[in-house]
Amino acid sequence: MSIRIGILGYGNLGRGVEKAVMANADQELTAVFTRRDPAGVKTVSGCPVLSIEELPGKKDEIDVLILCGGSATDLPEQTPEYASMFNVVDSFDTHARIPEHFDAVDKAAKRGLRIGVISCGWDPGMFSLSRIYAHSVLPNGRDYTFWGRGVSQGHSDAIRRIDGVLDARQYTVPVEEALEQVRSGKNPELTVRQKHTRECYVVAQEGADLARIEKEIKEMPNYFADYDTTVQFISAQEMKEKHSELPHGGSVIYSGQTGERKHVIEYSLKLDSNPEFTGSVIAAVARAAYRMNAEGQTGARTMFDIAPKYLSPETDEWLRAHYL
Amino acid sequence: MSIRIGILGYGNLGRGVEKAVMANADQELTAVFTRRDPAGVKTVSGCPVLSIEELPGKKDEIDVLILCGGSATDLPEQTPEYASMFNVVDSFDTHARIPEHFDAVDKAAKRGLRIGVISCGWDPGMFSLSRIYAHSVLPNGRDYTFWGRGVSQGHSDAIRRIDGVLDARQYTVPVEEALEQVRSGKNPELTVRQKHTRECYVVAQEGADLARIEKEIKEMPNYFADYDTTVQFISAQEMKEKHSELPHGGSVIYSGQTGERKHVIEYSLKLDSNPEFTGSVIAAVARAAYRMNAEGQTGARTMFDIAPKYLSPETDEWLRAHYL
Repeated sequence: MSIRIGILGYGNLGRGVEKAVMANADQELTAVFTRRDPAGVKTVSGCPVLSIEELPGKKDEIDVLILCGGSATDLPEQTPEYASMFNVVDSFDTHARIPEHFDAVDKAAKRGLRIGVISCGWDPGMFSLSRIYAHSVLPNGRDYTFWGRGVSQGHSDAIRRIDGVLDARQYTVPVEEALEQVRSGKNPELTVRQKHTRECYVVAQEGADLARIEKEIKEMPNYFADYDTTVQFISAQEMKEKHSELPHGGSVIYSGQTGERKHVIEYSLKLDSNPEFTGSVIAAVARAAYRMNAEGQTGARTMFDIAPKYLSPETDEWLRAHYL
Repeated sequence: MSIRIGILGYGNLGRGVEKAVMANADQELTAVFTRRDPAGVKTVSGCPVLSIEELPGKKDEIDVLILCGGSATDLPEQTPEYASMFNVVDSFDTHARIPEHFDAVDKAAKRGLRIGVISCGWDPGMFSLSRIYAHSVLPNGRDYTFWGRGVSQGHSDAIRRIDGVLDARQYTVPVEEALEQVRSGKNPELTVRQKHTRECYVVAQEGADLARIEKEIKEMPNYFADYDTTVQFISAQEMKEKHSELPHGGSVIYSGQTGERKHVIEYSLKLDSNPEFTGSVIAAVARAAYRMNAEGQTGARTMFDIAPKYLSPETDEWLRAHYL
């Protein structure tokens, strides 16, 4: 009776999803699918690893396929492709392209009579839910999102591409003063620089020009130029010891009014592991996708379209008795 | 094209709902209904005030009826009664009786082909949502709810019933140390006394035995005996100046793990007016009730059953483009 899950793509997120599925009593893992040579991939759960080419033949063995590739090139192709064969869930997060991605998945899922849920995780995902609920209740308010303290993989990668850099980790850090202003309900106007700072830990090649590397980081457009950025050079050993985890989190703060009276709503996350929490959200959404499809629903969805009860392993009666 | 709202019961909550409906561009107020003499009731919005006896004749003029009575005696009768004639929303909060209330409303609403949403507001309501989402994502975790700092009307009323008391206001206050322990993800076992304290402000009759009043408050079973309670006697003037508002709020903190890694989710509210925020939640739910019924859905619902998009005045496309 459990929901049979397939995972496509086995990086940090794929492993996070795997761990979440293992923790869910109502789900089981059919297989991990990869574009790499399956013989070279070992899963944490010990479940089979198969080539992506075997996926179409597994239609009858998988209830929900979770797509764990990247938003830049993988998901725009994969989610629509597999939504015609499987119920699918992805974590597509290229904001500007969400409408076209939704439409492509919607067409494919309707054709295949499946459900495809896109953009799941915590942002987009749980943070998006917190924004829509707050805005629905207090339509005249304003939302602020702060990220961190946490590792931004995109920014870490950008530093790694600089000549002379062996490894790097970038932490996004919300500015405490800005947080306090927003929490007080003052609805301040805040520049990019006023909201977040960026802390960089860098392992440089021996003999590299550290001053040049620091300058290149701090002046990098989009990534760092608009922020107060600090750069610290550390040893490979220290990087391994102190910066091998991927913590993240943040807060969505919404403040609105009823007449003269102010109300502040805050949703915040403090996560020891970004990919494992994201994987846990996605596994809950997979449960919802399965149930909605079992009811005869088809097409694309986001977490906005999913009644909370579909995400929970508990019955409606239990939820009303215990969580209401 | 706006959603026509009726309000039954015109106390603090009724006025809070009225204010919320006035702030919602897609809603309009048809009338307030009361058991009192309508001639003696004046609404903030200037909308008509009618006797409760006129309600059954207004079926065609009201899309959603919002029930603003109390959970002890009003709602158990009124919600099922009117759910057969109108889409209804209530804020029923007697936890132990939710299952039977749900069943009664479900039968009536199905008979009348209407939607009846029960137990809306912030707790039950927004806090319940925060619990179900967190538990669905991290099923092995634990939730803690802290209320306050805010006015508890039930506790204030209990003090007012003591001989020699003219007026009273009771603030429920979360214990900062307990909050910090929970936020750190330690999952502590906490007694009632360790979670909240109770602050009482009391206006006594001239010549009343203050020591006796204080003792009666502090020893009152269920309400105060299990808490660290402070009692301060103040003048009627000070009560009016410093304690005439009804602020409230609190936090739901959920902490769970993925293997060794901890994750803490916190949803918190800081409300200048409990009834106005509650009224705003209810008005958003009224929008959802109207839409679900327009789609042909009937029967009882809670906020667990409502996809977030139904609460929002915005289109699905707008929500995906802006809030995802």
